[in-house]
This record gives sequence, structure tokens and C-alpha cells, in this order.
Amino acid sequence: MRVRRLEAKDKPEWVTLFKGYIAFYKATLTEEVIEMAWQRLMEAPADFHVAFVAVDKDDKALGLAHVLFHRSTWSPTWYCYLEDLFVDPTRRKKGAGRALIEATYREADARGATRTYWATQEFNYTARALYDQVATKSPFVQYRR
Amino acid sequence: MRVRRLEAKDKPEWVTLFKGYIAFYKATLTEEVIEMAWQRLMEAPADFHVAFVAVDKDDKALGLAHVLFHRSTWSPTWYCYLEDLFVDPTRRKKGAGRALIEATYREADARGATRTYWATQEFNYTARALYDQVATKSPFVQYRR
Amino acid sequence: MRVRRLEAKDKPEWVTLFKGYIAFYKATLTEEVIEMAWQRLMEAPADFHVAFVAVDKDDKALGLAHVLFHRSTWSPTWYCYLEDLFVDPTRRKKGAGRALIEATYREADARGATRTYWATQEFNYTARALYDQVATKSPFVQYRR
Amino acid sequence: MRVRRLEAKDKPEWVTLFKGYIAFYKATLTEEVIEMAWQRLMEAPADFHVAFVAVDKDDKALGLAHVLFHRSTWSPTWYCYLEDLFVDPTRRKKGAGRALIEATYREADARGATRTYWATQEFNYTARALYDQVATKSPFVQYRR
Repeated sequence: MRVRRLEAKDKPEWVTLFKGYIAFYKATLTEEVIEMAWQRLMEAPADFHVAFVAVDKDDKALGLAHVLFHRSTWSPTWYCYLEDLFVDPTRRKKGAGRALIEATYREADARGATRTYWATQEFNYTARALYDQVATKSPFVQYRR
Repeated sequence: MRVRRLEAKDKPEWVTLFKGYIAFYKATLTEEVIEMAWQRLMEAPADFHVAFVAVDKDDKALGLAHVLFHRSTWSPTWYCYLEDLFVDPTRRKKGAGRALIEATYREADARGATRTYWATQEFNYTARALYDQVATKSPFVQYRR
Repeated sequence: MRVRRLEAKDKPEWVTLFKGYIAFYKATLTEEVIEMAWQRLMEAPADFHVAFVAVDKDDKALGLAHVLFHRSTWSPTWYCYLEDLFVDPTRRKKGAGRALIEATYREADARGATRTYWATQEFNYTARALYDQVATKSPFVQYRR
Repeated sequence: MRVRRLEAKDKPEWVTLFKGYIAFYKATLTEEVIEMAWQRLMEAPADFHVAFVAVDKDDKALGLAHVLFHRSTWSPTWYCYLEDLFVDPTRRKKGAGRALIEATYREADARGATRTYWATQEFNYTARALYDQVATKSPFVQYRR
């Protein structure tokens, strides 16, 4: 499973994947917010996410990862937050999710990040079966206003 | 309980509080990392945390909050992440923690953040008793490399 | 804190405590079910619970524990299930809860039970702060029809 | 998927299934305890479990359920505790687990049980994906001495 940086030509597949990801969470984002995320990913300001895609043999994206490097009071360098991870449901079980996490780890190492982390719903059993293999569940739970 | 922005004169109390907070997690940070966090809080670059302190009647800090505003692919504006929250254990039960969270909410509103969140250990019962009153536990759990 | 077996003279305090316990769970039981539980505790058939009370210096009950010994396919003897545990909210922090658990442990040992266990709500922070000191949280969660 | 009561002729398959179940929990039981469970299931005293098996077209057991009806201080009748549930790992995804739970529900209804429940490990994702369909996760966690 090949993973590479997101490129401008990926827009159609990226939009489909990102919308599928949002729908998975039974959430909605306006077209404007989705377009803004895309523009920011393309402009790549220092305070926005790095995006990876897992691609098939035709170099078409079938999975995405959005990774934010942010400051922490606990780190001289960065924390690496994997905010979004999604694989086309029809193309799972072939290692795309794992390859995207591994690409995230490599990027975190290249930037000297002192922590890499993400959050997932307690009942997202399919994802957690993978996460348990490549990471450790912390005892942290999330509160939101 | 009064809350205000962290100021240069707060350094002694801030160092004591931050070290108490780190010790609570049975973690360690080098003096260099703690000093770097302090310097960054004072220099206040756009990508670093906003710091609040709860103060007593002598304007001495007895609690701290470090709040990071970061980009999200889900937001046109910001997400507000309350990374650190700590109150001197000898001066609890007087509303300092709640006042620091409320100051965080006000700052989030002032900046138009579309989400405010934090993480806490599942077994941090004292903190969770407060959090349950001012926020909602999400079903998200945290994974770490 | 003294703990002894429930006796017939305890009925007024027992009713108050058991109703307080049920109300804590925002549940309701009919008077008939409460009376039936009392009768069974007094008649003490082999398949019903053993009841302990924590008592004050006037021998008045201020806390209760109902303990069921039941068969398990995993045990040649018994499992010990602490079904109900409650202390008068106005008389806590004096060791009654702990003393009731310790009485349960002694009874379990006397009967050769190979496991002693109970369930509590994830967000019952007050109780869990005690339970973490005298027992171990298992990774088991409970499903109900 | 057909489910019926455990019968004497099922012993070879039952032993294999029960041992597989115990091994799943990385636990061990002596041969004596396993034999004792079998004997009790066959003798069927009132205080022991009811056993069901899911069977294939040759009437061979490929899954088991051990169900304990016990008294509760909250019930005029019984609580129904599904203590053990296991399906041969090579014969899953065909409805045996669900059929065993449904047989448990029917038995609970026949006996007028006022609650049916069981416990599972938080990270048993495969089982929980089924349980989420046929039951409700309660907020109860389990403590053990």
C-alpha cells in the first residue's frame, strides 16, 4: 500500500473521502468549510495540517490522513495530532489505514515530535482493532463544551 | 475567584504550579523544557498557548490554565484545546478550577473557536466531578504511539 | 466502624437505607418488592443474600451490604457478588463503606468463594475512589437487555 | 441456526468449547473444575446454570451458553446472568452467538426474570459488535478483589 502527500490532482477523491469521513461521524460540514480545508491543505501554512493519501495502483486516493503538528507546553518541539483518518469502506482490510498511520509516524519522527496521538470513539471497534496493534490506548477521555 | 492572564511577575508561583501539575501525572520534564514553556508563554507567539492564572486576594497565582488555539480541518476558525489545568492542592474547592475553565470558554468565544475540549484520565475522579458540571464527556478515547 | 449481620430490629433503618440506595440510582422499587427483599433477608434461604450493616455507637445501622453467593461454572465453590452497598450520605467518610467491603471479604473467605466482585457506574467517582483502594477495576463492562 | 438444551451426548464438543472459551480469557481451570461444571450441568440443581448449545445440521454443538438464574434484592423473581458465551472460532459469523443470546432471552422470559445481563471485556470488539445490536451497554464497570 503506497502512501504519498496529498496533491492538487487528488481533489475529487479527497472530497469524496473527507465527506465519507464526516458522514461516518454523523456530522455535517458546509461546502465552504470543506473547501476552506482543501485550500489550506494546498497552501500549506505552517499552522495547518499535513495531508497524506493512500493510493491504489492507478495513483488514485483511497484513504486520507490529516496530521497537525502543534506546540505543547510539554515539548521543546512538537506534538503530532492525527486529526482525521479515513479509508474508503469498499477498500478496507488491505493495509491502507495502517500505512497512513505509519506515514504519520515517519513524519512525526522527521520533525522530532515528542508525542503522536489521536482520538477515536470508544465504540469504533473496527478502528480500535487496528489501533491496538500500532499504538497504546491511554487512560485519557475527552471532554467537550 | 479572580482569573487573569499570566504575567511576568507570576514566574515563581507558575513554576511551582506547573511542576505540581507535571508531578500529578507522575511525569517529568527537564528544567529546560519548563523554562522554554515559560519563555514561549511570555513571548506569546501565535502558535503557542494563552495562559491564565487564578489568583488570591494578594494577586498570587494559585491555579493555571494553558490554552492552545489550533487549526482544525473541521473549522473555519479555531479549535480551543485546554492542554493544562491545575490548582494548588491546598487551595481547592473554592472555584478556581471552574473559574479557569470559564475563562477558557470566554477566550474561545472571543476568538470564535468552534470547539473547546480537553482530555483527562478516566480515573481522575476529582477533576471529572467538576468537568461533568461544565462540559460533556465525549465517547472519544485517546491512543498514543 | 463496627459491622454486623442485619437483624430484625434494624428494619426501620434498613428500609431507609435501601430506599436511599435505590433513589441514588434514580430507580424505583415497589413497596412489595422492598418488603419481599426484607422477608427473604430475614428468612435467609440458601439462595438469597447475606446482609451486613455498619452500625454507630448506638448500634443503629448507617450502611448496608447485600451479598449473594452463587454458583459459577468457573468455581468448585462459590462466587461472591456484592450486589448492594450503601452508606447514609450524612455519615460518610468515616470508613463505613470500607468496613462493609471488608466484612464481605471475610464472609467470602469463610465460604471459600473463589471470586468476589461487584459493579458500579463508571461515573460514580465517590465510590470508585474507595473501590480503587480495596479492589481492582476489571476491563469488564456490563450489557443489559 | 438451531439452539437446544445441552445433553449428555454433547460432552466431547462441550469440553472443547468450554476449554476454548477459558483459553480465550487466557485463564486456566483444572480438569476437576471443568468436570464439576459438567456434572452440575447434567444434574441441574436449582442453583446452577441452564446450558444451551447452538448446533449444526448434524446436531453437533458449535457454541455454548451458560445461564444462571439468581435472586436479586431488586426482583420478586430472578435475574438472568449469561455467564459464559462462546462459539467455535472457525464457525462464526453465521448467527450462533445471536441465537444463543436469543435463547437466553426466551428462557429469561419464560421464568419471568426481571433483568438479563452479562459482562464482557471492554476491548472484546468482535463480541461487542454483536452485543450492541441485541442489548444495551450499561455504564456499569466491574471491580474484583
